[in-house]
Amino acid sequence: MAKIVIIGGSFGGLTAAFELKRLLGNKADVTLLCDVDQFVFVPSLPWISMGWRKPEDITLPLEKILTPKGIKFIHEEATGVDADKSKVITKTQEIPYDYLVIASGPALGFSSVPGLGPEGGYTECIFTLEQAIKTNKSWNKFLEKPGPVVIGAVQGVSCFGPAYEYAFEVDTELRKRKLRHKVPMTFVTSEPYIGHFGIGGLRTSRRMMEDEFADREIKVIANQTVEEFVPDEVRLKDGIKLPFKIAMFAPPMAGVKAVFHLGNPKGFIPVDANYRHKNYKNIFSVGVAIVIAPPEQTPVPTGVPKTGFMTEHMAKDAAKSIAADILGKPSPETEPVGALCIMDMGNKAALMKAYPVLPPRRVAELKVGINYKWAKQAFEKYYLWKIKRGLTQLP
Amino acid sequence: MAKIVIIGGSFGGLTAAFELKRLLGNKADVTLLCDVDQFVFVPSLPWISMGWRKPEDITLPLEKILTPKGIKFIHEEATGVDADKSKVITKTQEIPYDYLVIASGPALGFSSVPGLGPEGGYTECIFTLEQAIKTNKSWNKFLEKPGPVVIGAVQGVSCFGPAYEYAFEVDTELRKRKLRHKVPMTFVTSEPYIGHFGIGGLRTSRRMMEDEFADREIKVIANQTVEEFVPDEVRLKDGIKLPFKIAMFAPPMAGVKAVFHLGNPKGFIPVDANYRHKNYKNIFSVGVAIVIAPPEQTPVPTGVPKTGFMTEHMAKDAAKSIAADILGKPSPETEPVGALCIMDMGNKAALMKAYPVLPPRRVAELKVGINYKWAKQAFEKYYLWKIKRGLTQLP
Amino acid sequence: MAKIVIIGGSFGGLTAAFELKRLLGNKADVTLLCDVDQFVFVPSLPWISMGWRKPEDITLPLEKILTPKGIKFIHEEATGVDADKSKVITKTQEIPYDYLVIASGPALGFSSVPGLGPEGGYTECIFTLEQAIKTNKSWNKFLEKPGPVVIGAVQGVSCFGPAYEYAFEVDTELRKRKLRHKVPMTFVTSEPYIGHFGIGGLRTSRRMMEDEFADREIKVIANQTVEEFVPDEVRLKDGIKLPFKIAMFAPPMAGVKAVFHLGNPKGFIPVDANYRHKNYKNIFSVGVAIVIAPPEQTPVPTGVPKTGFMTEHMAKDAAKSIAADILGKPSPETEPVGALCIMDMGNKAALMKAYPVLPPRRVAELKVGINYKWAKQAFEKYYLWKIKRGLTQLP
Repeated sequence: MAKIVIIGGSFGGLTAAFELKRLLGNKADVTLLCDVDQFVFVPSLPWISMGWRKPEDITLPLEKILTPKGIKFIHEEATGVDADKSKVITKTQEIPYDYLVIASGPALGFSSVPGLGPEGGYTECIFTLEQAIKTNKSWNKFLEKPGPVVIGAVQGVSCFGPAYEYAFEVDTELRKRKLRHKVPMTFVTSEPYIGHFGIGGLRTSRRMMEDEFADREIKVIANQTVEEFVPDEVRLKDGIKLPFKIAMFAPPMAGVKAVFHLGNPKGFIPVDANYRHKNYKNIFSVGVAIVIAPPEQTPVPTGVPKTGFMTEHMAKDAAKSIAADILGKPSPETEPVGALCIMDMGNKAALMKAYPVLPPRRVAELKVGINYKWAKQAFEKYYLWKIKRGLTQLP
Repeated sequence: MAKIVIIGGSFGGLTAAFELKRLLGNKADVTLLCDVDQFVFVPSLPWISMGWRKPEDITLPLEKILTPKGIKFIHEEATGVDADKSKVITKTQEIPYDYLVIASGPALGFSSVPGLGPEGGYTECIFTLEQAIKTNKSWNKFLEKPGPVVIGAVQGVSCFGPAYEYAFEVDTELRKRKLRHKVPMTFVTSEPYIGHFGIGGLRTSRRMMEDEFADREIKVIANQTVEEFVPDEVRLKDGIKLPFKIAMFAPPMAGVKAVFHLGNPKGFIPVDANYRHKNYKNIFSVGVAIVIAPPEQTPVPTGVPKTGFMTEHMAKDAAKSIAADILGKPSPETEPVGALCIMDMGNKAALMKAYPVLPPRRVAELKVGINYKWAKQAFEKYYLWKIKRGLTQLP
Repeated sequence: MAKIVIIGGSFGGLTAAFELKRLLGNKADVTLLCDVDQFVFVPSLPWISMGWRKPEDITLPLEKILTPKGIKFIHEEATGVDADKSKVITKTQEIPYDYLVIASGPALGFSSVPGLGPEGGYTECIFTLEQAIKTNKSWNKFLEKPGPVVIGAVQGVSCFGPAYEYAFEVDTELRKRKLRHKVPMTFVTSEPYIGHFGIGGLRTSRRMMEDEFADREIKVIANQTVEEFVPDEVRLKDGIKLPFKIAMFAPPMAGVKAVFHLGNPKGFIPVDANYRHKNYKNIFSVGVAIVIAPPEQTPVPTGVPKTGFMTEHMAKDAAKSIAADILGKPSPETEPVGALCIMDMGNKAALMKAYPVLPPRRVAELKVGINYKWAKQAFEKYYLWKIKRGLTQLP
């Protein structure tokens, strides 16, 4: 029986675990390691920060959903991996594996800009449940005494979506509360232009976003480097200083400590088309943890985002590849990963389809409407229902 | 009985006079001083210049509309104000006051650019009835031998609307006359981009104006400083020289001589939220005469426009404040001023609503259609009917 | 009987020949000289290159259509013109004339950029039937192993339309074949912006083209100079190097050798409003062969395109002027030339009307739709039917 260890309990880790069990049944001994004991539906974190969701609405206990499927759950942080000896290391034990799946997600690079981030810095973040809850507290305080808001993404960021969503949601909520006129809003980004999203844009996304921000009277400063954050102020490389009562900035990402030494200079894992580590044949990696080369060098550095949809797709292909290995079959052919995502815009949403993710694409769609907002809300419920039951084969 | 003197017989002065009489009746002795003896519906001046209106269509004799309301009219120019002794000075008399309302409008700064303006310069202007009549004469001459037209706003301008209206009207009229192909048209402005209007733009006004000018094949040179006008040519800072057969340029504005010493370095009066002078408690000021700080520093200097709608609103608030003072009540709470205006586009018009005028705004609307042109035409008649009767309380 | 010699058997030459015969009948001895023996409907050449047309679909034998009208056809290249002795020179004979019509079209300036063009260079061209057939062969080979495509117009180009059409057609065909995602596409042009077309744009053509290229995910590099083409790579002045599997670049044009000495420094013939040579009273010239001054100096040099529609118009006016001369009447008044063209966009087409061609214009239309594609297809058949019968008077 092959011993498979999975690091990470989000989209990638859960999907890989369920798929491996489905494909291999008793031929696989699957263990999932995670430093948090619940699955968090990350796409809804901006809604936590706005007070539109409560933590219990978007979380599931990992043990309860893994155990019925015969998957072992260890609530511990992986602190290292000994790839040569095929062992995962935690504070209390060493876990040997035949196959390892790294679905750890990213480490957040708050130290890249002085004053960035909610721990020791001056900006909010909405990339973890903890951060989103803290941002919601700051938001409620802000509403009592509103003032300037600055939202954006610093240099080196790859995941721009939540910054856009947060900007649109803040604008929408302030209008609902008839407070918008008290809040000068500015969006600052390292993208060469808004609507770039780290993927070189998607059809007319540039024009669409320029019009949307103009229409909402949110000022845009693109192609920009942030020098530092100080209390209540962000200082840009161009010499511009923007005061703020609340600021939310996406940080750059890197590989997590435990697997950093297995990756590229930023700690991201280099993988082949089957998501297999380029040097270690029994290590696979999926999701934010892997290397994806950007479509173009941007003047201010940016990276390519990896969405939950992409991660799930990768996890399924990685599971198939491992199963093939164990069953003595050749590695399956894989298709390049595509992206399907719905960006919340507060009072409506944008559907984006990109296949492959980077141009030139076979499929490229960009549509905006209230119906996509409804779809986004419905999908959240549907996905939680699906993952609770381990139904990874449903679309 | 409180003696109130009002300088100015346009939107601000008339509205203040009628409102003070309405609120105070016999408790107020109201005198209105104006160097011209008629009310001119200034928004229609571009139509005078195009020959679409005659002077009698848009003017009313001041004495005839003020006397029936018990308001004294003095057809004299105020040449000075002695604020310490509370006296308005003219060439023939000194008029003491308990309260002074400065609704003088602006002085036009033609001397700011060599060759600017219709008196001693080479460009037309449409900011006074006299200028508009002169521009109409030049226009009729131009039509006999058409050639290049340059329209715009020099550095330091705050009132951009008439330049836009004039450009659209000239384009529309030339098309009607099948002469457009003989007239290269260029729009030169100190705004950082067209559609800025001195108010940082209004929703998608930038894109809308860019498309409109492109669609009409009017070339745009924005963010530009004019060096000088010489006969038949304007010379820009960038080294561009544009020949013209007719040129209309908006001039910058300053405070009028009589009250210049009561204002900021440009002669504009600093007022509080009740339109009371910041140093002289019995002096109030409304309309173009007051200081409004711009929303942002623009690369080429620009100011914030003040429309008739804004001026009326201010005049009502100022009158309420003076009345409260006289009746021994506390100053009323006021709301920031908003703007509602219809910009003529020749063959259609644009409705613009901004509340407050500067971003961040509670209300921001921008719509274009032939129906707004009809509304603009109807409003002109309605307003003249209303002001003739002193019905300032009608919307 | 006046002896009239016409150089060129395309739009200009044929139209002039038919018109002269129609106007003068037996008073004119008309001879048409052409180095190819067939009329080619040049607007359809991009369709040849895509395999959407065969050569026989868009060609007609010159002799067969000229002889019935009493026009003599000589299948020889004009190698020179002796304007002082009024003789056209070929390799085998000297042909005296009373009037000469130069409708020779252009010489293609492939030598202007190292590596440009299909003869000795590395790029395709679609300006002659031979080139279009060759491009079609390269295209079929390309489809077996697709890769990057670069399409555009080098510095000095005046005829941009075919480059746009080819880009849209390649995009459309690749999508039909589900190959688009294997083909990064880039459009490189000397125009200051796309949609300029050498005529300073046409209404909102800039925005329209920017949106169209974004929507199709074709990258645009405008205002650009090409340094050189090497095998499988184009090198731009900005230092950018673009690899390609297939590249199609429009070349600049000049006057043909035989008449170069009669023209401006580029060999284009200077003519008056009647298309009469400014120095030689019995020489007329129409179409691409003549001088048209550009509407503006562009940062990277460009010229003004001359379409078939324009050429026909010129040929009719030239014929009328010659006929008037022969009949002893004064030269007729002419109108400036306008342009009506339909740009194929693969899956739809754009109608462009410009009268005059350069701004300021009396008429300027820009419309996009599938119906214009149908119109373009129908016009091709109609025009071939019409020219076969010499019916130049039909619209």
